[in-house]
Amino acid sequence: MRSDERRTAEGILFTDQYQLSMAQLYFRQGLHERPAQFDHFFRRYPDYGLHGAGYCVSAGLAWLVDWMREVRFRDEDLAHLRAQRDQVGGQLFADDFLAYLRATGGFESLSLHAIPEGRVVHPSVPLTIVRGPLAMAQILETALLNQINYQTLIATKAARIREVSHGALVLEFGLRRGQDRGANAGTRAALIGGADYTSNVGLSSTLGLPPKGTHAHALVQVFLALGQSELDAFRAYAEVYPDDCLLLVDTIDTLESGVPNAIRVFAELRAKGHRPIGIRLDSGDLAYLAIQAALLLDKAGFAATSIVLSSDLDELVIWQIQTQIAQEAPRYGADADAIMRRLVYGVGTRLVTSHGEGALGGVYKLVAMHDGAAWRPAIKLADTPEKLTNPGLKAAWRLYDARGFATADVITLEAEDPAQAERLPLRHPGDFSRHRTLERAAISNIEPLLVEVLREGRLVNELPTLEAIRARRSADVERLDAGVRRIVNPHIYHVSLSQRLWDLKQELLAQLQG
Amino acid sequence: MRSDERRTAEGILFTDQYQLSMAQLYFRQGLHERPAQFDHFFRRYPDYGLHGAGYCVSAGLAWLVDWMREVRFRDEDLAHLRAQRDQVGGQLFADDFLAYLRATGGFESLSLHAIPEGRVVHPSVPLTIVRGPLAMAQILETALLNQINYQTLIATKAARIREVSHGALVLEFGLRRGQDRGANAGTRAALIGGADYTSNVGLSSTLGLPPKGTHAHALVQVFLALGQSELDAFRAYAEVYPDDCLLLVDTIDTLESGVPNAIRVFAELRAKGHRPIGIRLDSGDLAYLAIQAALLLDKAGFAATSIVLSSDLDELVIWQIQTQIAQEAPRYGADADAIMRRLVYGVGTRLVTSHGEGALGGVYKLVAMHDGAAWRPAIKLADTPEKLTNPGLKAAWRLYDARGFATADVITLEAEDPAQAERLPLRHPGDFSRHRTLERAAISNIEPLLVEVLREGRLVNELPTLEAIRARRSADVERLDAGVRRIVNPHIYHVSLSQRLWDLKQELLAQLQG
Repeated sequence: MRSDERRTAEGILFTDQYQLSMAQLYFRQGLHERPAQFDHFFRRYPDYGLHGAGYCVSAGLAWLVDWMREVRFRDEDLAHLRAQRDQVGGQLFADDFLAYLRATGGFESLSLHAIPEGRVVHPSVPLTIVRGPLAMAQILETALLNQINYQTLIATKAARIREVSHGALVLEFGLRRGQDRGANAGTRAALIGGADYTSNVGLSSTLGLPPKGTHAHALVQVFLALGQSELDAFRAYAEVYPDDCLLLVDTIDTLESGVPNAIRVFAELRAKGHRPIGIRLDSGDLAYLAIQAALLLDKAGFAATSIVLSSDLDELVIWQIQTQIAQEAPRYGADADAIMRRLVYGVGTRLVTSHGEGALGGVYKLVAMHDGAAWRPAIKLADTPEKLTNPGLKAAWRLYDARGFATADVITLEAEDPAQAERLPLRHPGDFSRHRTLERAAISNIEPLLVEVLREGRLVNELPTLEAIRARRSADVERLDAGVRRIVNPHIYHVSLSQRLWDLKQELLAQLQG
Repeated sequence: MRSDERRTAEGILFTDQYQLSMAQLYFRQGLHERPAQFDHFFRRYPDYGLHGAGYCVSAGLAWLVDWMREVRFRDEDLAHLRAQRDQVGGQLFADDFLAYLRATGGFESLSLHAIPEGRVVHPSVPLTIVRGPLAMAQILETALLNQINYQTLIATKAARIREVSHGALVLEFGLRRGQDRGANAGTRAALIGGADYTSNVGLSSTLGLPPKGTHAHALVQVFLALGQSELDAFRAYAEVYPDDCLLLVDTIDTLESGVPNAIRVFAELRAKGHRPIGIRLDSGDLAYLAIQAALLLDKAGFAATSIVLSSDLDELVIWQIQTQIAQEAPRYGADADAIMRRLVYGVGTRLVTSHGEGALGGVYKLVAMHDGAAWRPAIKLADTPEKLTNPGLKAAWRLYDARGFATADVITLEAEDPAQAERLPLRHPGDFSRHRTLERAAISNIEPLLVEVLREGRLVNELPTLEAIRARRSADVERLDAGVRRIVNPHIYHVSLSQRLWDLKQELLAQLQG
């Protein structure tokens, strides 16, 4: 795609055709400027097949906001719409509607509340709330879902990998396996959710982070093809990067060639006063090879070097490697904990594609319309109670128990303040038989989750830096119960509706069904 | 991400750090301008878990070429590289290397051969061959893998959906579920592989295709929230789009409300001389609902209307729906074939994410280096024979049998011409025990697969249009055996090495291992 085409395909027409069809219908019906509210939320955590998430990590908001503030209906965009034909050859989008789009410009009429990036988030709770003229709020749907769903999916996967890594460094290596330039969004989300660094040079540069990497098999192959050896390749690397010397040792034979050659080069570096960084293993039985490589490195006096593992890692594979090391290391007289402490995990394909569940099913649903006099709540019927939407203008809160741990998220009507209530009757969002009452005294803190981001297109506050977002993720995860953090079969975190929201939902259902 | 950041993250720094580290090492060793050849190929077809592909469809080349011709090392990019520090605070990339990158500019020194987009492709056969100065050929790796792997993955999935759709219209709806702007690449690949149209407005516009769509549940919800009805919403739609009237009928109750209301509105349209398009079903038991809706539509005289199905469709789900319709329709006195002929499949999440296998493991391997006097073949050792690379400068051919069906792909040395041989001894790429000999007389045609695309950065021929690419895909798929086209447990297509290539491979292995 050429740059000019890219401006069209990534601008305000980055949307589905039906959003524009509906917008024209609203325009024709005089509804296009009526205030509407859409809630964006997901219905269930990612399910990776044999394991599933107990929480998600919110990400993508800043890029959505940047996009919303940059795109507009340009003449080229309107020309594309004007060229569309209906089935009998007529102009599909009429000139008066196109003139309205041109006059509207972009999304500057919309207001946005959202749960900030890096926060732990749960099903049914609105991640993003869009309020503004119906037509433009409708047109925004596709881009909003695209940008926030994907980054939230990847931040969630990264948080799981962080969880099993127990403080070890996690490097994101997925650029070559993402979807075209969308891989950059994956990199950013990985950094939000739990990766420490990335190999992605461009994106790292924009974030002010140093990109990380070593060398590929190709380097050794070049030397071999020219009649030289793996040792020559390693020496060349050490010469150019004496203080950043991390060597990939599996091009020929990890234990017979790669590690011994690395140790020779490390010894030469040490003699010159440099501290070698370590080795990378990219194939074979990584747990076994890590133990054997550690033993060889230790024996040569390089106990402080890192061992970077890569090759289709994900949270289960990392967990399995750790388990195998714990079981197998003593057999070789090696200290399993010491090995584990020197490991670094390079995670690529399975992080950037969220292996096992490649999409987060976040949806964007109309929850209220202004009829000219007042807001009217809207609901969406569904096959199952879980898929019913929660109607009306709402707020969302996180309740912390006496230990300071998050115990439930509660969705209320906008006007409610649960902090003022003595007792909180809570309802399960989908199951009418499940309810309970929390005593206010048992709750140490009630925290509103949604913050105002855009007020009629203007940024209300500066968006947080990557570092602030990562600190928030870390703090939120620390305040989750261990059971919710489990990577397999996690405990189900409570998400509840207030009694008043529940009553409104029942009332609307009764109206629609009767 | 702001536009200026995007220019950095999507420009020439859209690469992994180690490519630049290696490039500097080559520069320091005086190897950076040495001609090198890298082959890009995949090792196995996508495996979706319980089913797998029998062939892939090549896609992504045109966008890679556009990108290669646009990006350059800009001052901002070089400033980011200059700012990188090693572990002891020194400048990681030295000024002379950065000056070389600036002087080099971009990828204009590279030549590229490739199998054209839309062609059926198989494991081990080079999809893309990059030849040129070692440093820049190395830096290209990440972007090449990113762009061609993803589009080939999606074109392949789309071809499978096309296969089960038996000529029915397939619409691509995945924009909201792709990876950020990468979703556009998914849309394009879907159109190459088998989707007829897409809902993606921007990308459709750049391709000169009409985007497709109807309306969302939100439209009906707006009317309900304002005290009106589903029928009012449908009437409003029919008024604005009398000749494009396709109604989503599952917002309230498909058979009790949606279809009867659609039929009322269709009758009103017919009375005014318009031809209604049809209905869309987006939830519930799609096969059952399609039968029942068809019966109601037929009874009302709308047998020519379409029934669009959506909701997590993929090749297996579509196949299951067809099977259920075939079994269940007669029970209701309905004509299963007639129902099948009016179906349209809207495929979103599972196409754009390639459900079941979210990445194609294409790799980019050094296969030859020029030592100043001659090309020296390079090989990469591996744990398993399947993962060994095929060394040297090569050509790839497709052999057609007497019926005109593709019977094998053969990889040879560049200098070989299998069309001139009486007999073709063929070797399995990984298994030394498997070989056979084809008689030239049994082969109706031998076709070279790789075409020259870039010669030192200059486009050799105009790249084909989307229509030409789609026609090529269609022709290639038609020339595959039915067994290879099966969506479950497909027959394995033969990919072979010529005897001379096999001999070279053995020779290099022996050198490396002994």
